[in-house]
Amino acid sequence: MHRYPLQDNPSYAVVKQYYVHSDDTVAQQIVVHKNIPRGTLFRRAGPAQKVYFDSNDVRACIVTCGGLCPGLNTVIRELVCGLYHMYGVHRVLGIKGGYKGFYSRNTIPLTLKIVNDIHKRGGTILKTSYGGHDTSKIVDSIQDRGINQVYILGGFGTQNEAALIFEEIRRRGLKVAVVGIPKTIDNDIPVIDKSIGFDTAVEEAQRAINSAHVEAESAENGIGVVKLMGRCSGFIAMYATLASRDVDCCLIPESPFYLEGPGGVLEFIERRLKEQGHMVIVIAEGAGQELILPSDKSNKNRPDAASDDLFHDVGLWLSLKIKDHFARNKKMTINLKYIDPTYMIRAIPSNASDNVFCTLLAQSAVHGAMAGYTGFTVGPVNGRNCYIPFHLINEGQKRVVITDRMWARIGCRYLMTQQN
Amino acid sequence: MHRYPLQDNPSYAVVKQYYVHSDDTVAQQIVVHKNIPRGTLFRRAGPAQKVYFDSNDVRACIVTCGGLCPGLNTVIRELVCGLYHMYGVHRVLGIKGGYKGFYSRNTIPLTLKIVNDIHKRGGTILKTSYGGHDTSKIVDSIQDRGINQVYILGGFGTQNEAALIFEEIRRRGLKVAVVGIPKTIDNDIPVIDKSIGFDTAVEEAQRAINSAHVEAESAENGIGVVKLMGRCSGFIAMYATLASRDVDCCLIPESPFYLEGPGGVLEFIERRLKEQGHMVIVIAEGAGQELILPSDKSNKNRPDAASDDLFHDVGLWLSLKIKDHFARNKKMTINLKYIDPTYMIRAIPSNASDNVFCTLLAQSAVHGAMAGYTGFTVGPVNGRNCYIPFHLINEGQKRVVITDRMWARIGCRYLMTQQN
Amino acid sequence: MHRYPLQDNPSYAVVKQYYVHSDDTVAQQIVVHKNIPRGTLFRRAGPAQKVYFDSNDVRACIVTCGGLCPGLNTVIRELVCGLYHMYGVHRVLGIKGGYKGFYSRNTIPLTLKIVNDIHKRGGTILKTSYGGHDTSKIVDSIQDRGINQVYILGGFGTQNEAALIFEEIRRRGLKVAVVGIPKTIDNDIPVIDKSIGFDTAVEEAQRAINSAHVEAESAENGIGVVKLMGRCSGFIAMYATLASRDVDCCLIPESPFYLEGPGGVLEFIERRLKEQGHMVIVIAEGAGQELILPSDKSNKNRPDAASDDLFHDVGLWLSLKIKDHFARNKKMTINLKYIDPTYMIRAIPSNASDNVFCTLLAQSAVHGAMAGYTGFTVGPVNGRNCYIPFHLINEGQKRVVITDRMWARIGCRYLMTQQN
Amino acid sequence: MHRYPLQDNPSYAVVKQYYVHSDDTVAQQIVVHKNIPRGTLFRRAGPAQKVYFDSNDVRACIVTCGGLCPGLNTVIRELVCGLYHMYGVHRVLGIKGGYKGFYSRNTIPLTLKIVNDIHKRGGTILKTSYGGHDTSKIVDSIQDRGINQVYILGGFGTQNEAALIFEEIRRRGLKVAVVGIPKTIDNDIPVIDKSIGFDTAVEEAQRAINSAHVEAESAENGIGVVKLMGRCSGFIAMYATLASRDVDCCLIPESPFYLEGPGGVLEFIERRLKEQGHMVIVIAEGAGQELILPSDKSNKNRPDAASDDLFHDVGLWLSLKIKDHFARNKKMTINLKYIDPTYMIRAIPSNASDNVFCTLLAQSAVHGAMAGYTGFTVGPVNGRNCYIPFHLINEGQKRVVITDRMWARIGCRYLMTQQN
Repeated sequence: MHRYPLQDNPSYAVVKQYYVHSDDTVAQQIVVHKNIPRGTLFRRAGPAQKVYFDSNDVRACIVTCGGLCPGLNTVIRELVCGLYHMYGVHRVLGIKGGYKGFYSRNTIPLTLKIVNDIHKRGGTILKTSYGGHDTSKIVDSIQDRGINQVYILGGFGTQNEAALIFEEIRRRGLKVAVVGIPKTIDNDIPVIDKSIGFDTAVEEAQRAINSAHVEAESAENGIGVVKLMGRCSGFIAMYATLASRDVDCCLIPESPFYLEGPGGVLEFIERRLKEQGHMVIVIAEGAGQELILPSDKSNKNRPDAASDDLFHDVGLWLSLKIKDHFARNKKMTINLKYIDPTYMIRAIPSNASDNVFCTLLAQSAVHGAMAGYTGFTVGPVNGRNCYIPFHLINEGQKRVVITDRMWARIGCRYLMTQQN
Repeated sequence: MHRYPLQDNPSYAVVKQYYVHSDDTVAQQIVVHKNIPRGTLFRRAGPAQKVYFDSNDVRACIVTCGGLCPGLNTVIRELVCGLYHMYGVHRVLGIKGGYKGFYSRNTIPLTLKIVNDIHKRGGTILKTSYGGHDTSKIVDSIQDRGINQVYILGGFGTQNEAALIFEEIRRRGLKVAVVGIPKTIDNDIPVIDKSIGFDTAVEEAQRAINSAHVEAESAENGIGVVKLMGRCSGFIAMYATLASRDVDCCLIPESPFYLEGPGGVLEFIERRLKEQGHMVIVIAEGAGQELILPSDKSNKNRPDAASDDLFHDVGLWLSLKIKDHFARNKKMTINLKYIDPTYMIRAIPSNASDNVFCTLLAQSAVHGAMAGYTGFTVGPVNGRNCYIPFHLINEGQKRVVITDRMWARIGCRYLMTQQN
Repeated sequence: MHRYPLQDNPSYAVVKQYYVHSDDTVAQQIVVHKNIPRGTLFRRAGPAQKVYFDSNDVRACIVTCGGLCPGLNTVIRELVCGLYHMYGVHRVLGIKGGYKGFYSRNTIPLTLKIVNDIHKRGGTILKTSYGGHDTSKIVDSIQDRGINQVYILGGFGTQNEAALIFEEIRRRGLKVAVVGIPKTIDNDIPVIDKSIGFDTAVEEAQRAINSAHVEAESAENGIGVVKLMGRCSGFIAMYATLASRDVDCCLIPESPFYLEGPGGVLEFIERRLKEQGHMVIVIAEGAGQELILPSDKSNKNRPDAASDDLFHDVGLWLSLKIKDHFARNKKMTINLKYIDPTYMIRAIPSNASDNVFCTLLAQSAVHGAMAGYTGFTVGPVNGRNCYIPFHLINEGQKRVVITDRMWARIGCRYLMTQQN
Repeated sequence: MHRYPLQDNPSYAVVKQYYVHSDDTVAQQIVVHKNIPRGTLFRRAGPAQKVYFDSNDVRACIVTCGGLCPGLNTVIRELVCGLYHMYGVHRVLGIKGGYKGFYSRNTIPLTLKIVNDIHKRGGTILKTSYGGHDTSKIVDSIQDRGINQVYILGGFGTQNEAALIFEEIRRRGLKVAVVGIPKTIDNDIPVIDKSIGFDTAVEEAQRAINSAHVEAESAENGIGVVKLMGRCSGFIAMYATLASRDVDCCLIPESPFYLEGPGGVLEFIERRLKEQGHMVIVIAEGAGQELILPSDKSNKNRPDAASDDLFHDVGLWLSLKIKDHFARNKKMTINLKYIDPTYMIRAIPSNASDNVFCTLLAQSAVHGAMAGYTGFTVGPVNGRNCYIPFHLINEGQKRVVITDRMWARIGCRYLMTQQN
């Protein structure tokens, strides 16, 4: 037995328990019929033996809330097709423009014909918006319209608000199924394995990283900086880094860093440029927010800052800090290019893998609602779609990378995957 | 409680137990430290606390066998990078041209510089070949060269042969780790969730299906036929169908079908054309082989038939049968276009999702070999990479779709996802 | 002055006048107001100062004939938009399914809303078909419907038939503009620089060539054979070869070749494999047809052979001949992969360059018809869109590569661009 | 004869001579052997009957200067391959990092093997930089190294500096060919039809426009703003707009505009949002620079501002102005997304069309230098590659859109292609 080389590998230093226990095992069968004594178990999604609703009585509605992510149209399509083909439900209403669409009475009927090709387009045919949640007015509208199945696509905040609707419906004693479908490109929704559009986003992020790499390689001391989505979590940044193999430094919210001095990012950049003449940095939008001083915040004049007051453009900030540093110490002339592909990533159609994922998620949601379940979010747990009660989502901690062994796999704070 | 509508849905008829038990649950924690009473458990992959090999003594080699699939170069790159960066192993040899490369002494040293960009190219820089397995000569070569870690990328057959190498090595009492890395685009290797390149293949198959759909839609009674990989299993066909939503009929080896008469494929085609004027058929290469008469086999004059004597081009065969049928019965004039995208799919670089998968698989393989494990294939079980003893792979049944609840999700024998 | 090295270069041997005259010059101004003494001149396309039709009286129709090519939907869209936005013409009819749609009374009104997104889809929303031309019935239908502008998208044959319609209309003394829009992916229409979809086709062909190259490189003596469109001309094959730089041998209809013996293709293949271990061959579908013996034509059992009796699958034929040759002479074992991407190329949406081209062509067609011109095909001559009388198109020789100095730029009969 | 409807169409108002003369004709034959009395004529590019250099004596060098554009690596590859295969020239030197590479003695030998695959990668393997031109030191270096063919890839400024090198060489009486190859993604080099990478840039710009369109469509009063390259000319913006058909407003440097008041951009935006609920604006980077007040220039803190002092980020500026306007007048709430895809466009590999273009340009350059021509830029005039003396390029006006009839084809100052 030899000394374990990973012990001193900085990539592994940040993760306390870097090695696997020698008796760590993975069970082949994870769907169980009887409770295992310990651990949380979720109801498996799928068609139930008995259904609660009479298909002729069902009036479903679908709403999309929050920012765009790839796959929304696929979920909408498959909810409509699933209700129609599996259960013969013909009446599905699209609520337009997010929560406020409920009470501004802005709706379209969703037929097979209307949804037929929408999965090949990005965005959402239902339009979306932030905010506008007014529980009472929304439930009034549901009641008025005779809706008895409500499918809500949205992120963490949206799922919280879905829970309020669910509770108000229960308070009023209505027989209405409320189903959440998790949508956040950040992939930070608790409990579930991943949310829709994530694979597509990681795939599309490769374009930006590739371009940053080419720009960096073609210049003397070239630095490519790419900002990716992820406010509280660095999942996209981490997976995009893992997929690319061209990234030298990946900065995420979960792993604090500092710029100046020994062990700082600037020192690392200098070393890396000396070693290989160019480098690529990926930074999640939520990383390093605590480092941005109020005086730096003049770049709040980003045109889309309004909706995001708390988040300053950390990619721009980092780029300026790096430029200032090298301009000041005059040791090397650098060429920095900053790329922010956010809106180009969010708006593309979902790829094949996400289309499959969205399709199964939508079918699971429909099976759950038809079986009479309500107040749940549907999502994959260990690869199986489950029905997860709202409160377990909402009381859960947002998922973060640092709890994940995956992070050790790309490396420590700064240095990443490629050649170190 | 209402009658269950799925009962009579032909999509579900083929799957006996179509509904989920009401007490089916999914465990959130599937990595366990103590044995659960029942069920098969696999050793979880990851860095071990103690390593078996001294890094300075390691001489690793990598070989790729069988047909191409996306991701081979990524695995090669990450084995080399993983050995170098994680364990300081600098001596890795590439065996060229498959198993026969061991004894034809055709090798290249694999350095960080050589592998740096290879993950962006399709194919395998080590070249590959079918056959050429000669256990004794291979182990002689391993012994002669002082190799003590052997990484073998290949499909079901290759993994079987890896087991023979492992046993011969054990017989000779050599301290050599033999590690299999599952590579088959068909995705039919037992036990593991999926093999490398599968996601990329499903993604790329969309191009062929889209083109078939456009050709079909632009003609009167247009029929697009797409043949996809899958000799014993229909995974690619099934997932590509699920992802596309434009496929009307998906034929796979696991689900027998017949052409003529009531309930036959031809009848279904006729009905579908009458309903919507065009249709797309996806057929896995191993589907319907039992229907091809010797007299039909004149189309064995496919240029690449030699290596595949047992498999006749079922896509061509089906296309001719359909054309004959409609020419004979004169009821409608059809326009059929046949697309075989096989080699265009196999040869592309892996997408982001497969790059991540290949990277983690290669790292897992390296951790396992360094920890002193041998005679195993590395692969994901319920989403976690595990070390699976060769005999469990080799004695296992090839994975088939029909055991999979997924099949019910796209529908019955013929009619699929879209509008039925 | 030194000996001219290209003299003995086989690439240039085939082109008689390989060098440029020392007094060859290119005029900067090629649009002229007065006739130059010699040479053919065409009327330049564009808005005329006076228009012939009153917009309120215009009833236009559009028909697509023959096989698919990228850009058909863009032309349809821009005809509709051009008529509407530029001239206020609101009545445009789509004739469905090719020429026969005129008298089978299968039409749709084409509005701005209907055509809005169609340029992002491949194929033609009007459907297409071969044949069905019946001059008298077509002109009856035009007369009956009160149509006074007829836009006909199609290839060489279709333009011939458009001329018949034009003459019949003139014979009957109708005030109907007949406009041809050249559509053939083969790019062989006389006089004009290029036809729609050509750029997209060359772009998409790169995928097939890349895959063939990867398959060839990953095997011992790997040969990738790619068949591309081009019955009488090798334009796509030639440009795809020029664009790829991975093709070793390009066979086109204009340049005869033979297989066996010295200077034959087989000898060249053998030499190339010995030199670099792998190679890619591109063959246009019309190349070498005279070499295919009736006994070889058993591969007429291609499912889509019916419509193409004269053209045997030369790619399959060549692949078998190569396999036979190397199986017989036993000098080397080869690995050949044959790729036929035809239907995958034809069916994709047009790229940006073709979208611009189609848009300007459609606008030119509209300007011409509105100005009262008739009996012409619109197309670019030396980069400027012109109105070319039908008879100059129809009496012209099909364009062939061999008249083109471009061919010398990729090389001689067999060996091409890359390393020779 | 009817009133001409285009007369009042605002799209045509800006172009004085919107219609074509009735006797405007296009000559089919534009390569002439004798001078036409009037007009500028250029020497046609191609292999000459006699060559000036003995291949054994040739020592060529290649340098890339200025910003990236698609196709640089293809030109480098084909210069090396052209010299080698056509003329047997084996000694080609790569000067690294732009002009300053000449005297900082930073070079690599360019062999067939090194350049073999580079055309599949973006950027330039020779690296590039701005500035660093020192005529005397550069010519010293050329003389010291015994170089007699100098190939210089660069934009307007670079071609000017190439002329200085040419003159200094002539002054010193050296037998050195100096050849310019026009590289500017802006496409504004005088005389020539287009520069390398332009097609690829227009193609890639579609992604950004598509995403902007999807974001705009998915929100209430959604506005997508896309900034594209083009400092003095709007070619990319114009062609990208023409290709997309989703752009409502295209702002370019050649066509002045103003924001406030009747006929201003803001009024147009308001009208467009009322009409269709969403819109896309494309703005060339050089548009509206005169409108940006010094006080607005706080956004000079763009990280890459340094090299571009004169150009403020007009996309950001416009986005802020629009947001301010609608925030102030409170009539509507808008959702604006700003996309700057510049570095993602510049860094991609060239597409098939540009690969063909770059290959022919490089071959033309080699033929010219070998024939003993010097002091010229190679480029297409009316579709034929020509040798254009430096002074005609350098004394020429930068090409601008407004001289181009093309602009009328997409419309007037604000309103564009789609529904007007």
